[in-house]
Parts: sequence; C-alpha cells; structure tokens
Amino acid sequence: MQLLDQMKSRECTRTGDVMTAIRLKISSRALASGDRLPSIRSFAATMGVSPSTVVEAYDRLAAEGLIRARRGSGFYVANTGLPPMALTEVGPRRDQAVDPFWVSRQSLDADPAVIKPGCGWLPAEWMPQTALRRALRTLSRDENAVLADYGSTRGSPILRRLLLGRFADEGIEASLEQVLLTSSGTQAIDLICRFLLRPGDAVLVDDPCYFNFQALLRAHQVKIVGVPYTPSGPDMKAFEAALIAERPRLYITNSALHNPTGATISPQTAHRLLSAAAAHDLTIVEDDIFADFEPEPSPRLTVLDGLNRVIRIGSFSKTLSASIRCGYIAARADWIEGLADLQVATNFGGPSPAATELIANVLGGGSYRKHMDELRQRLARARHETAARLESLGIQPWLMPRGGFYLWCRLPDGHDSALLARIAVEENIVLAPGNVFSVSQTAAQFLRFNVAQLGDPRILAVLQRAMASHPAN
Amino acid sequence: MQLLDQMKSRECTRTGDVMTAIRLKISSRALASGDRLPSIRSFAATMGVSPSTVVEAYDRLAAEGLIRARRGSGFYVANTGLPPMALTEVGPRRDQAVDPFWVSRQSLDADPAVIKPGCGWLPAEWMPQTALRRALRTLSRDENAVLADYGSTRGSPILRRLLLGRFADEGIEASLEQVLLTSSGTQAIDLICRFLLRPGDAVLVDDPCYFNFQALLRAHQVKIVGVPYTPSGPDMKAFEAALIAERPRLYITNSALHNPTGATISPQTAHRLLSAAAAHDLTIVEDDIFADFEPEPSPRLTVLDGLNRVIRIGSFSKTLSASIRCGYIAARADWIEGLADLQVATNFGGPSPAATELIANVLGGGSYRKHMDELRQRLARARHETAARLESLGIQPWLMPRGGFYLWCRLPDGHDSALLARIAVEENIVLAPGNVFSVSQTAAQFLRFNVAQLGDPRILAVLQRAMASHPAN
Repeated sequence: MQLLDQMKSRECTRTGDVMTAIRLKISSRALASGDRLPSIRSFAATMGVSPSTVVEAYDRLAAEGLIRARRGSGFYVANTGLPPMALTEVGPRRDQAVDPFWVSRQSLDADPAVIKPGCGWLPAEWMPQTALRRALRTLSRDENAVLADYGSTRGSPILRRLLLGRFADEGIEASLEQVLLTSSGTQAIDLICRFLLRPGDAVLVDDPCYFNFQALLRAHQVKIVGVPYTPSGPDMKAFEAALIAERPRLYITNSALHNPTGATISPQTAHRLLSAAAAHDLTIVEDDIFADFEPEPSPRLTVLDGLNRVIRIGSFSKTLSASIRCGYIAARADWIEGLADLQVATNFGGPSPAATELIANVLGGGSYRKHMDELRQRLARARHETAARLESLGIQPWLMPRGGFYLWCRLPDGHDSALLARIAVEENIVLAPGNVFSVSQTAAQFLRFNVAQLGDPRILAVLQRAMASHPAN
Repeated sequence: MQLLDQMKSRECTRTGDVMTAIRLKISSRALASGDRLPSIRSFAATMGVSPSTVVEAYDRLAAEGLIRARRGSGFYVANTGLPPMALTEVGPRRDQAVDPFWVSRQSLDADPAVIKPGCGWLPAEWMPQTALRRALRTLSRDENAVLADYGSTRGSPILRRLLLGRFADEGIEASLEQVLLTSSGTQAIDLICRFLLRPGDAVLVDDPCYFNFQALLRAHQVKIVGVPYTPSGPDMKAFEAALIAERPRLYITNSALHNPTGATISPQTAHRLLSAAAAHDLTIVEDDIFADFEPEPSPRLTVLDGLNRVIRIGSFSKTLSASIRCGYIAARADWIEGLADLQVATNFGGPSPAATELIANVLGGGSYRKHMDELRQRLARARHETAARLESLGIQPWLMPRGGFYLWCRLPDGHDSALLARIAVEENIVLAPGNVFSVSQTAAQFLRFNVAQLGDPRILAVLQRAMASHPAN
C-alpha cells in the first residue's frame, strides 16, 4: 500500500500547488474579483502538471467559493462582495430567549471554539468514523441508481429489513409494510402529528421532556399538557387525571433512556399506562432514539402493545451519524400508507437512498456492535466521573442513569439555571437549563449535562465562578 | 495504478469467496434461520483468509439482511420470516385513483422492469456519475465533524455561498442570511406554506401545474385556485380576476421551464404579474428547479423583484442527484430566520452536512458545467426525436420547449389520457396523464412525456395499441 500512498500524496501535492498558486494570485491582487482565471490548458503548461490536475484544483477552489465556473466560458474569481475565505458566519445571537429553541440555536450554530456541555450529541471522534469512511468508499462503487435516483416512497427495503430484524430481537412482529423511513427522527414525529392531529387537540408530554417536542407541538398549534416524570416513568395518577380532563389525542415520550432525565419506565408503569391509553383511545409515540445506549433492554411500550396503538420512531443520529440523516416510523400498516403519501406530498419521498445505503452498511456490520460495546463502557466511565466532579460543586444528579450521555442535575438551592446559562454563553459555554425542558416551568433549579462533552476543565471553572457571582439568596 | 487495482480485486475476491461460502451454507440448509454463524477467527482459518476479510464479508451479508449481528454474541442467520434475498417488495397497487399522487406512487415504487416515460427525472446514467463518485471518495477523507455532526441550522455556508454566486450571475443581490438549505425542494415549499398559510387560505397555481403542488397544498388544507397557463406564462386576465375574487396569499409557479408544459414566461407577463402581485400583496414562490436546463436565462420573477415578495426555491435533484437530497430557499432575511426556526422544530435542522458537502463539491467544479453542456445537447436531440416519433401516432406537442426533458402533448381528438395510462400500467409502462396536473380537470386529452425516458420501443407500440383498442368516438 506504500506505493499507493506515495502516488496519492504526490497527486495531492500537485493539486495543492496549483491551488496555492491561484490563491496567491488572488491575495496579491494579480487576479481581482470577476477576473477570468488562466485557461486549464495554458495553466497546466505553466505549472508543468497535467490538465486534469488543474481541473481538480479549480474544482476544489470553486467548491470553497473562491472562484466560480461560468457556463461555457471558464472560471472567474468570485465577486459576491464577501471576503473570499470567510465561510463561517456570525454565530447565534446570545440574548435570545431561553425557550425550547434555546439549546438548538446556541449549540447547532455555535462557533467551533464554543464548548457545548448542554448539547444533545456525542463528539464526532466518538462516532464510528472508520466504518463510516469505509461505507462511503463502498458507496462510491455502488450502482448508478443508488447515487442518482429518488428511491422508493417508503425508503430502502434493506434498511427497513435490518430494522425488522432488530424489532424481532425485541419481540416485535412486524412486516416491511409497517416501516417507513423518513428524513430524520424529528421529521418522523412531525409527519405523525400532521397525520393524527388538528389544531387545538391536546397532546401529553413528560415534564420535563426533550425540548424540541415542545417546539414541534407549538408548530402544530396544539395544547401541550405536561405530566410529571418520576424515576420510574410518568406519574400515573397525574397521567390518568390528564386523560380524563384533557382527552388528549397523543402522548409523545422517550423510551429506554428518558431525555433529559435518563430514567427508565418500570414494567408496572408501562402496563398501567397502556391500559389507561386503551381505555381512553390514546395513541402513543415512543421515541426509541437512545435504545442502543442501554446495557440491556428495558420495558418497551411498543413491545407490550405490538404496534397497535403505539407508534415506534427512531433515528441513527446519536449512535451512527447525525450528518447522514435518516429516521423511521414503525406503525399499523394502514397508518404507514397514509404517512407515506403525506411524505410524498411534503418531501417527495423519504430519506436519501445514498444515506440509507450508508446507514445499512454501518448498522448491519459487526463493527457497529463492537463500537457500541466500547461506547457504552466509555459513557459509563464518563457518567461516574462527571457526577463526581459536579458533586464537588454541590450539583447533584437526580438519578444515575443506566446508560446514555445525559445527567439531569439539581443545582444547590437558590440558583437559577437560566441565569447560569446566560452567564456561561458569554464565556463560550452552552448549557442546557432545566426550564427549556419543562412545560410547567418548574425545572429552574436543573441543568442537563452531556457527560461526553464535559472534558474541558473550563466548564467547571466557569460554573463555579457563575454560581459564586450569583450566590443563593 | 495497476498494482492497486490488482490488490483491490484480490481483496474483493476473497471477501466474495467468504460471502459465497456462507450463502451456500444457508441455501443448502447447513445453516438455518436463527443459527449462529462460525466465529470470525475459526472461519478465517477454515477459509485461509485473514479475520478482517471474514469481518468484511459478514458485515456485507448483514447489510443485505441475510445475517444479523447480536450484541456480544456473534452473527446469526436472519429469521424475519421473509425469504432471505427477497429485498424488493410488492409494487404499487395499479388500481389506485388517477389523482395528483398517481405519477409519484407508480413511478417511485415501480419495479425496475417498469418503463417510466411519465416520470420526472433523468436516467441514472445521464447524471454526473464520475463527479459524484469522486465527491464520495473525497468525502470519505473529510473531517470527522462533516461525517458525524448535525451541521448548522441554515446548512453549509459553502453551498449557500455557491448559490449566492449563481444568484449574482443572474443579477440577484443577496446575503448568506437570505439563504436556507432544506431537505428537498418539496420540503422548501412545504416550510414556506407552513410559515405563510393558514387552513382555508387561497393559493394560486398554474393550470396545468406540477402535480405535487396540488398534493402539498391539499395537505395544508388550503383552497387551490388554478389559472390557465399559456405559452408565455399565466393568462394574466384570469390571474388578475383571481386576485380580486379569491384574495390569494400565495402563488406557486415554475420559472425557466414550466412543468409540465416546458413553456417560458415572457418579459411582459413577468412584469405585469409582479405589478398585480404588488397591488394585491401577493407572495410568490418561484420554483427554479429546471433553470440549469435552459440554453440561456429567461425572465425570472426573483430577478425583477429582488427577493422582496418573490421567494426563490430550488434543488439539485434534476441535474446532479435525486439521491443526495437537498433543496434551498432564498428570501427576505426575516422570513429566513422564521423558516430556520420552523425547520429546527420540524426536522431538527436542515439537510445532511454530508449531502451538502457532496453537492458543493460537484456543483462547484468545472466538470459539472461540462456535464450540463453535454446534457442540454443530448436533451435537445431527444426532444426532437421524441416529437417526431409521437407525431407519427398523431400525438402533437403543445409547444417545443427551449430546454428540459418534458414534452406536453395533445392526443388525437376523443382519446382520454387517464384511460391510456391505466392500460399502459398493466403493460409495465407508467404514463403521466394530463389531469393529474390540472386543477380544473381540463387536460384529459394531454400526456406529459419525459424525452430522456422514451428510448424503449415498447412505449410507442403500447401507446399505439392502447389508442387503437379505444378508438376516438
């Protein structure tokens, strides 16, 4: 393989030389905005390289936005009025409201220098990079149709079949007609809401719950009803009272490892919940996105119910890649038929066939299993280390989760997490304050920490300083 | 490079040998459903290959769904109850209603043996395969974050900057804050509808128009008002009358090359339309998806209006890849801010960063320009050849478009295109009957043909036979 590496690096160096030469021409004003670049043939002669090397270099510079191809007349220096290499943009405004969008906006659009102990994903280095890169190389040799065509309305049968296999392991019997692939896990819930809800309907969520459930339900103009979440699932007395008082159409919850608390529903609560749902004709969306982080499977509403009134959704963003986006819905076949039509109307079909090919390749392989084994061990260590470090500041985990990367923590009495979050963001640290998760706004004393994103010592230093500057009253 | 090819092919052969050996064990019942596969180490010894070759083979078989990895205990023969290699599924029901979903359902979910002269995309072989494959290999060497992270809420600044460069060529001044990347072109329109419309609002579309505009607007429960389309754009008398009678909130149209007719709006119609829109506070969505197929730019509503009341949307599905999905919205900065929030709520952000990286790589390169030059020439030939062949059956193009791949054609008097489509689909040919495009259901005598999908001689033979069996009355 040495020969190959040498050849590759020589090829890269030549392309790089051509790119550097052009960059210099532009930065030295030898070429100004709007100027035509030397023709490929003539510049290849000038540089003593092949025309294909110049083509490659121009292509890359164009992809960077520094130059631009114009139809039929060659390449020109870009003239959009922006400084040529300023490809990053102004980050999110820091004075935005601490609402259900707060964490998404601050963490998704943050400058790379910002530290994000409040975000909802693992560091890129913790993801199965080797398998992803191998899958991309495999995809680069795949059939034309996979690279260019729309794909079927329900998405890759290969990936759906892999999901059926995983469902079968859990004890869920389902057919291919009961699975629909979507653009993302969030879009899966969005489609279900469009399919089942009308403005003004009541929808139950856990209090606290994943903040984006609230953002999504607001977009559907429904009444959001929070039910207090306990260490063994929703508070069933409050749940049953809400069923009677609000007659909700839907309940949306996380199974396996609850977001943000990391709690797990107990078998008794799961059974009682499904009985109550049947008595009141309630449909349930079980978001299974954290399932692979469990050391062993916990009670599942979908398993007890058998895809009758429970709809299972999930995605691969937390364990495989958030960049290669794909979600899924498993439900009654007649609902899937309606949901597939709705996805054609609103997105002209499901996720990218190229994306589902990549996911099936990684997910179906033995290396994914090994990756998840290692990841669970790594996260278990990180949970315990983080808990110990937070406790040294008087910040206490509400419970110690069985798996996953969240710790839902209580601040010492008198501290307000929204205030801490506002102070921290000024120091380039994004926290997840409790009330962005709480319908009743009763979680002001809580913060959700991502134990995989807490490596930087500045985080605890800033927390300590912020708590000291606004002491408990 | 020969050495590399040899090494690669030897590696592939060994992996293939292991895969074949396992397949044989399964098909011969030496391994049955649920049986554990030989361990990697022992099977590597049996086959005389390295353990990594067996891992690769098991991974691929698992990706195919033939075997399954179980956490901590190796690989097992899949037991989902389905025949192991039957990965394709039952095609669409052929008796479904000829409605705005008809073409999507029949063409997206068709068996590969089905011929689709009615579909809305180019054959995979006509797409820029070499550039796509090269972009995938480049992506396989990209940074960890591009492969694993969510990306920013508005999508890749590199791709947005490339779009700004194209807009600048047209004469549209815009900033990065005015561009939002989306999961698809359809999803771009869907987001705009969610942002601007309320159930019961009136929305203008062309009659005929792209059938999925109707499917989408039905999902939004709005009143769809059709305006007759002429060879130079919408019939302005009817358009102005509809503005007064219906007070529509939105008008959705294709610019450049109208779908399904292939017509181009005239400068006079464009100006008159924008003046009427200003007088009645109408917002316009200009779907620019066919722009790159034009031989030279035609009048654009966005260019005349300058992203004031016109919203530009588009995607790369027709010219680059429909598999690597991505769309965009260019609009007023305050609208983009609201649309970005809505996309976070409903999809947790924009398109896949991996997808936008691939698109920027291909779109920014000189090879894309050359590809489009060749494609336009190829399509010009195909348009003329197809028109001549259809005319031999008495089927007449309504007009000869300047570009693109559609021909909107009138059948001889007395023939009904929905009836022809129903007959043809029984012979594995998907046509696009006129009334799926028509709000007023006045296009029963029309068919839309895709000139790039008309190579198979069976198409004209079946058309001729179907027309003969149901002669004009």
